[in-house]
Amino acid sequence: MSSLCQNLLMSLAEPTRLHSDDPAASIEAVRGMIEARLAAIVPSAQTWPVRLHEAQRHALLSPGKRFRPLLTVFIAKGCGVSAEAELSAAIDVGCVSEMVHAASLILDDLPCMDDAALRRNQPTTHIAFDESTAILTATALLNRAFGVLARLPQVSPVARVEMIDLLSYAVGSKGLIAGQMADLANTDHSASIAEIERLNMLKTGALFEFAIEAAAILGKASSAQRAALKDFSHHLGLAFQLLDDLKDTLMNDDDAGKTTDRDIGKATILALAGSQAAQDRLLGYIDSAKDALSRAELIGGAMLEAVLDRQFAFVNHK
Amino acid sequence: MSSLCQNLLMSLAEPTRLHSDDPAASIEAVRGMIEARLAAIVPSAQTWPVRLHEAQRHALLSPGKRFRPLLTVFIAKGCGVSAEAELSAAIDVGCVSEMVHAASLILDDLPCMDDAALRRNQPTTHIAFDESTAILTATALLNRAFGVLARLPQVSPVARVEMIDLLSYAVGSKGLIAGQMADLANTDHSASIAEIERLNMLKTGALFEFAIEAAAILGKASSAQRAALKDFSHHLGLAFQLLDDLKDTLMNDDDAGKTTDRDIGKATILALAGSQAAQDRLLGYIDSAKDALSRAELIGGAMLEAVLDRQFAFVNHK
Repeated sequence: MSSLCQNLLMSLAEPTRLHSDDPAASIEAVRGMIEARLAAIVPSAQTWPVRLHEAQRHALLSPGKRFRPLLTVFIAKGCGVSAEAELSAAIDVGCVSEMVHAASLILDDLPCMDDAALRRNQPTTHIAFDESTAILTATALLNRAFGVLARLPQVSPVARVEMIDLLSYAVGSKGLIAGQMADLANTDHSASIAEIERLNMLKTGALFEFAIEAAAILGKASSAQRAALKDFSHHLGLAFQLLDDLKDTLMNDDDAGKTTDRDIGKATILALAGSQAAQDRLLGYIDSAKDALSRAELIGGAMLEAVLDRQFAFVNHK
Repeated sequence: MSSLCQNLLMSLAEPTRLHSDDPAASIEAVRGMIEARLAAIVPSAQTWPVRLHEAQRHALLSPGKRFRPLLTVFIAKGCGVSAEAELSAAIDVGCVSEMVHAASLILDDLPCMDDAALRRNQPTTHIAFDESTAILTATALLNRAFGVLARLPQVSPVARVEMIDLLSYAVGSKGLIAGQMADLANTDHSASIAEIERLNMLKTGALFEFAIEAAAILGKASSAQRAALKDFSHHLGLAFQLLDDLKDTLMNDDDAGKTTDRDIGKATILALAGSQAAQDRLLGYIDSAKDALSRAELIGGAMLEAVLDRQFAFVNHK
């Protein structure tokens, strides 16, 4: 680990810094550590086969909010994780969510799926490279995510296999992939709000569940805390997907930094209930998420509220 | 586990059955158990989303020789694994290789890669379904493979994370995916035999290495045995890829059960050295593999020779 990264970890380990009056600075410090770790996990762009690693770095290291890793780190911290080595593991677990997220975006953007050309203000991976490279890059990122979990420093093998099992569940037939399959076939406008929520839970909620539950494992959370955090992740997943749908409809490509209007013709809450009702519902999800979070009684809960407010600034400013 | 499967496991655990005078019957019995376990690991074709699971079963359960799983089971057995629960774990690990193999074939066959329409005497997954389903199916199979390793019955968490780490290595930037990237760009006919062997090791050898090394972990092989088995997997990988190249050139689609002539224009040992020299080289690889295997001093080594002879029957009968 670089000495810069080590210094940041040590300052993060001091409660005074983390619970300082400047949550934004704390969030930025952690985000910087996540960026540094992501850049270190993936082979350099000079490593053979060069094109594969250039594409991985293109997809993974393009500027992002790193919302899932931030959740993992601050929830682990909120559960009492404070030793340097344990925080380092929380950052790695955060990176795992980000790698899986990046992999899912590469695939979602393919011509045979959402056929999107822009993502995070840059060409999507199959546009910047080509389709076969994009598909192999996504596969490589998912594959490496499991490798990172298998090697988590200072985490017991029992906890590691628990997290690997969780990730496989979150990605698989009852998670991300099932959600993407269903989303591709989602043109049934007789679907109910409950059915769309179920789809959104798979498509988006499953990876939040992993990011949050893995943090609870790292933080050895009590069963009451884990139950509250599960409820938190449920509402957070719904909120996040609805926010994404709102952005797709209400923002243009430049402001969203990605190809928008991909939802046209799809059964979304927005399409069913209209923009105002969808925004009201989003605020309701966020309130429920915050309620659940407060029930988890984490240390420094205000930090997590700041992470949420930062992510949902689009709604707050509307 | 079904009672049929349990009965088979119990008979397999009896040394008299395994080392019987009829290796072909023993191989078929184990192959049957592998088939049954593969069918149980993947969700039923009625499970939502139905199309995803139909496609998984199409790709994974189509008739195959199950060479990698057979290697895993008989090597684990050769290292002394005999308890029913441990044999059951060896079958699961064997299924993992088969799932990853099936995933890699789905991707290799895509229009943006080898663009093949026939595999194992049936339409490739993107032909039988569609491209997005094929890509998500491959991703789901790889993902589930890690999930199976995380939950291996009767295997210590330490051994499980070791195998997960091995699989991630075998699939990643120094294995299968790197090999496939390089193969797609492989048109350099100034490549040397050594360079092509290196590519073949990645493309094919890496997964053999996993199948064999994982068996050594299950069987608690000595370090001398592991070294010999590593040498075995090296030569086996080279042999297998060269056999595949020979089939691509010398067989038609019907006999091979898959789209052939995919190697035209590629730098293969066959293209460089010609058919006869390639066949001689293949026999050399097989001899080296058998030598390494005998150095591993496994129990019932004759069974493994029978597994090899069955796989390489194409060469023996030429």
